Amino acid sequence: MARDLSLHPDRLFPADKDVRAIARRLYQEVAHLPIISPHGHTDPEWFATDAPFANATELLIKPDHYVFRMLYSLGVSLQGLGIDGKNGPNTTDPRAAWRLFAEHYYAFRGTPTRIWLDWVFAEVFGLKVRLDGETADQYYDVISEALATDAFRPRAMFERFNIELLATTESPLDPLKHHDKIHSSGWKGRVITAFRPDPVVDPEFEGFRDNLGTLAEMTGCDTSSFAGYLDALRDRRAYFAKRGATSTDHGHPTARTADLSGAESAALFAKVSSGAFSADEAELFRAQMLTEMAKMSLDDGLVMQIHPGSFRNHNAWLFENYGRDKGADIPMATDYVHGLRPLLSRVGNEAKLAIIVFTLDETVYARELAPLAGHYPALKLGPAWWFHDSPEGMRRFRHQMTETAGFYNTVGFNDDTRAFFSIPARHDVARRIDCGFLAELVAEHRMEEWEAAELAADLTYNLAKRAYKL
Amino acid sequence: MARDLSLHPDRLFPADKDVRAIARRLYQEVAHLPIISPHGHTDPEWFATDAPFANATELLIKPDHYVFRMLYSLGVSLQGLGIDGKNGPNTTDPRAAWRLFAEHYYAFRGTPTRIWLDWVFAEVFGLKVRLDGETADQYYDVISEALATDAFRPRAMFERFNIELLATTESPLDPLKHHDKIHSSGWKGRVITAFRPDPVVDPEFEGFRDNLGTLAEMTGCDTSSFAGYLDALRDRRAYFAKRGATSTDHGHPTARTADLSGAESAALFAKVSSGAFSADEAELFRAQMLTEMAKMSLDDGLVMQIHPGSFRNHNAWLFENYGRDKGADIPMATDYVHGLRPLLSRVGNEAKLAIIVFTLDETVYARELAPLAGHYPALKLGPAWWFHDSPEGMRRFRHQMTETAGFYNTVGFNDDTRAFFSIPARHDVARRIDCGFLAELVAEHRMEEWEAAELAADLTYNLAKRAYKL
Amino acid sequence: MARDLSLHPDRLFPADKDVRAIARRLYQEVAHLPIISPHGHTDPEWFATDAPFANATELLIKPDHYVFRMLYSLGVSLQGLGIDGKNGPNTTDPRAAWRLFAEHYYAFRGTPTRIWLDWVFAEVFGLKVRLDGETADQYYDVISEALATDAFRPRAMFERFNIELLATTESPLDPLKHHDKIHSSGWKGRVITAFRPDPVVDPEFEGFRDNLGTLAEMTGCDTSSFAGYLDALRDRRAYFAKRGATSTDHGHPTARTADLSGAESAALFAKVSSGAFSADEAELFRAQMLTEMAKMSLDDGLVMQIHPGSFRNHNAWLFENYGRDKGADIPMATDYVHGLRPLLSRVGNEAKLAIIVFTLDETVYARELAPLAGHYPALKLGPAWWFHDSPEGMRRFRHQMTETAGFYNTVGFNDDTRAFFSIPARHDVARRIDCGFLAELVAEHRMEEWEAAELAADLTYNLAKRAYKL
Repeated sequence: MARDLSLHPDRLFPADKDVRAIARRLYQEVAHLPIISPHGHTDPEWFATDAPFANATELLIKPDHYVFRMLYSLGVSLQGLGIDGKNGPNTTDPRAAWRLFAEHYYAFRGTPTRIWLDWVFAEVFGLKVRLDGETADQYYDVISEALATDAFRPRAMFERFNIELLATTESPLDPLKHHDKIHSSGWKGRVITAFRPDPVVDPEFEGFRDNLGTLAEMTGCDTSSFAGYLDALRDRRAYFAKRGATSTDHGHPTARTADLSGAESAALFAKVSSGAFSADEAELFRAQMLTEMAKMSLDDGLVMQIHPGSFRNHNAWLFENYGRDKGADIPMATDYVHGLRPLLSRVGNEAKLAIIVFTLDETVYARELAPLAGHYPALKLGPAWWFHDSPEGMRRFRHQMTETAGFYNTVGFNDDTRAFFSIPARHDVARRIDCGFLAELVAEHRMEEWEAAELAADLTYNLAKRAYKL
Repeated sequence: MARDLSLHPDRLFPADKDVRAIARRLYQEVAHLPIISPHGHTDPEWFATDAPFANATELLIKPDHYVFRMLYSLGVSLQGLGIDGKNGPNTTDPRAAWRLFAEHYYAFRGTPTRIWLDWVFAEVFGLKVRLDGETADQYYDVISEALATDAFRPRAMFERFNIELLATTESPLDPLKHHDKIHSSGWKGRVITAFRPDPVVDPEFEGFRDNLGTLAEMTGCDTSSFAGYLDALRDRRAYFAKRGATSTDHGHPTARTADLSGAESAALFAKVSSGAFSADEAELFRAQMLTEMAKMSLDDGLVMQIHPGSFRNHNAWLFENYGRDKGADIPMATDYVHGLRPLLSRVGNEAKLAIIVFTLDETVYARELAPLAGHYPALKLGPAWWFHDSPEGMRRFRHQMTETAGFYNTVGFNDDTRAFFSIPARHDVARRIDCGFLAELVAEHRMEEWEAAELAADLTYNLAKRAYKL
Repeated sequence: MARDLSLHPDRLFPADKDVRAIARRLYQEVAHLPIISPHGHTDPEWFATDAPFANATELLIKPDHYVFRMLYSLGVSLQGLGIDGKNGPNTTDPRAAWRLFAEHYYAFRGTPTRIWLDWVFAEVFGLKVRLDGETADQYYDVISEALATDAFRPRAMFERFNIELLATTESPLDPLKHHDKIHSSGWKGRVITAFRPDPVVDPEFEGFRDNLGTLAEMTGCDTSSFAGYLDALRDRRAYFAKRGATSTDHGHPTARTADLSGAESAALFAKVSSGAFSADEAELFRAQMLTEMAKMSLDDGLVMQIHPGSFRNHNAWLFENYGRDKGADIPMATDYVHGLRPLLSRVGNEAKLAIIVFTLDETVYARELAPLAGHYPALKLGPAWWFHDSPEGMRRFRHQMTETAGFYNTVGFNDDTRAFFSIPARHDVARRIDCGFLAELVAEHRMEEWEAAELAADLTYNLAKRAYKL
């Protein structure tokens, strides 16, 4: 017997009646504000071609490593879920994959994935029963049929979702053809790129040396010298900025930065670009490049985002057989106090610079990041990220950051997702949790309700727009 | 004037009226489920001989380092509390020790010890006034008189406590005579052992070399070679399994694992078994042995428990004069991401393997353990442990683990105790806290109440039974 | 249009109606207890001369790095706020500085600074509108005029604030003239000093070698030998104790301690006092000096406070231009388990010794400090400190410390402030948060209300008095 699915209007608000009433009032004022999504990983091709999504599995399972990592952890095979491996595309029947997912959907109880997906099921597809083994086929049919209609194509959904701006993330080696196509298409949707140079600044990135060659070709700069290499990066940053980019993004394993002399940097670049270098040298080069990128941001005005602390591809077997981004990246303890100091000594006192720092290590919220951001003019705090982009994670972020950094050293919400249809759900969770947090402050008389209302709008909309220069 | 003692039926439920009502309904369905205790340290001799406990001090103070560590921290001498030292048994009058404890009982306000003991006083012994200096003698008399009756003998209490299964923990060198006696006695109570090889896999364990000799004698294997040593361990694992053991337990200082070649392992074994080895070599040997044990688990099906992160015997003077397990073990920061990687690279993708990991370092809940367990098929999360086996500790566990690992990568509750009479109190605390947590999710509309009810039963009973293969 | 300012009588109590009612009852019993301030940084000259404070900026902005660090982080210049640099006093008009502060006051929403300042505005100065750009001048006038009257002089405020005892902190090189003047003045206010030897025990402190020379002059001891140096410290400790000091205070970068032999210590002292030493040697010397100080405390009875874990002067440019204590000290991860062990091995079992440990690294609350303090007789837990001296910070402290350490290994509240007028506000926040925490325990039936009432008085008054031997 199928169980009812419905989204309660008070979901995610604190349980206490008085606090909930305040949260409800605050939420009312921000629920319908447009979505600003300044950091994410949707595929610009979707908006360039506006082709329909194929089916439920293609839309909701295959691009979402939150979904298949959990199922894999419980013994479900990636093969059965239709995940493509390195030896070619998966030939599992997408309906069979969907059924497997549906039978294990109970395992997402208590997770944000469950919240996001239920929103997509109920709000986007109008489903009124819960997903389980019995309702799997019904779901598959309803979703796949809807996707075949014009109303569910990428651009239509973008508009329906009330997205004011969406940023994707591209490598400096990307020619940005999809973005060009979007911009020249006459469609009003604002989709911009962000500059993510990992493939050309991380000596341990797959194909680093070849990438330097490509970078030379694309820019006409001589990337065999450090000066030419920096010029090439400046050139690509300008290319991205011309196409609307307002930010860069840096996904390093640690928060280490360096401030070497020009000669030291050049010598180090010679080493890493030769291919003969140690792990320490690679780390030092990445560290130096963060400072180089910050210096370029001072010049060209691009907002800098630093995302450190993930042990990428922890599962060697999985990486070998299925590749990157398969749910096997694991957070690590991260030291920002010593790590960021060289960069901050160089540019931290520049009020016109904006460096947004993220973390996967929540222990640094109150100990390191809030004190740093509550002091250095150049530093701002990115929102709760990745594993912590969840009701409890966002609450910990606010509870642990606010007292030392305040609200005005934060930058609003990032959905950071590949799962396009979940974007409104994710923003809605953030708005509800923020309103709930503010409501607690009001209920404890630590703030007036009119202040909370101002803050709710700032956290939802204004701070992101200002911080990312949109 | 004595103060009333009574256990409130709503204790430990969230204060909010609506949430509490939900918690109460959920708890009603699990309160009377039998106790599964798959990990603990009660003495099997109690159930083998069924001899009565001597008196209140013998039952409640002397085996409980939670009790005397707190009193010691406030300046109370271990001598006065009747704790046996290394120079022979303590001759303090047990009633005098009890009085000293009673006078300081106020110091346990806010601790789980207070919750557990009040349960024992009220529920087991029917006491109706609070323990303090004035009521010390009344308590001592009531408890000691009760203990002399048949109804308070170990087997009777086991039955009264509704224990379906209790696991103890023994060294591979233990001949398991008490367990044999229990099993051959005709008594229906199910008491099983667990295989805890620290004395024969940790080169720094007291008497390690002698232990290898004993191991050779017990098994007939040649423990002077690595191959023979592994055979001996396999032999003892099989011996334990035949007597009902379904799990092993590993109490290492760190979470480090290794995956050395056979030749490297053999050479390392030769070193550590010679007695001439460095601290680093001892650590590497323990690291390798975790992987060896995991490989054996793949073969023999024993569930593997890893309990790292305790600095044992931190107080040198105390260790010298009173020995182990006197409340001077202190948790340390523990790195699981790098530590477990060699083991996980070897066996982490095996869905039929069950490795249950515990921690004393709560900072890894959301940062490391939930992401690891939410990805690797072989990994499961042990419950909040030791210092964190408490209302606040359990709440932090659920709040920080659930969103990334879900509930179905956890394994129910462990009481992990030497304090036999407190077992039902500890399980009751876990049930109440879990129901309260689930009630919060229901109240915030993050889950339906029927799902919470299913989960309450799973967390209380089903998950432990399944995870430990009982 | 100006907004109303008023302090709600229920501020900072939990929102739940039933819990709040309990908190209110508990608070009622402690709200009017006198203030014990055993650790802080007010200037004894204020009480020695009893000179009026000059104006609002001088009183509330310039000595308060919580205030200007936040404004600086948002791009406001220290110059504009009137902060004195190293090249001479700032000549900004204090009223202009105040306006700048007022225009940015919204940025303190959600911070403890906002709570403390609103209390000062409303309670001390009777202001009834909120501070913002429009009300800046009104505020400046009201405050500056009040400060010119006798009722707002330091001694009058001390009495109005109901301060029973206030400790300041001085270097061993301080002749304590202000304290002598206070004591000989006939004024009844009890202002004592505390012995803070950083300038003469930290080889990396500015002027360390000169300081040793001054120490020799002041004491007549030969500080060129280790024995003479220790004698000089003993002499100054006795000098401080004679003037009422009951405690010492140690602000080291880490929690590292050492227990070297006499010969090793002497050799190390020879090195560091020669000026030619490595960073490691400086760290080892500081480590050894903590143990030396603990041994002296055993003899002279001074309570020892250890405040580790701050990366001082993280912002090199700021330090060069504005000096110490300008809001650029950043907390670091701190290891107490290994760090304190040498000291604890030496004196940790001494019940008559009192070592109060603080931390800026909240991850050690439940993992390290509560287990250590819940075992070692000599160890007590200082309250939530510095960045964590805030509603959320105090709640985390109680939630994470209490279950393992209990309440009776804690020592009450420290305001630790330079901001004299905020002292009652800070104590009031602590009392409210503690009563709220106790109320939650009562509401969850983890404690009786009569016990919570006893504890509220202990946490507010008795524990501080006892722990600091006042």
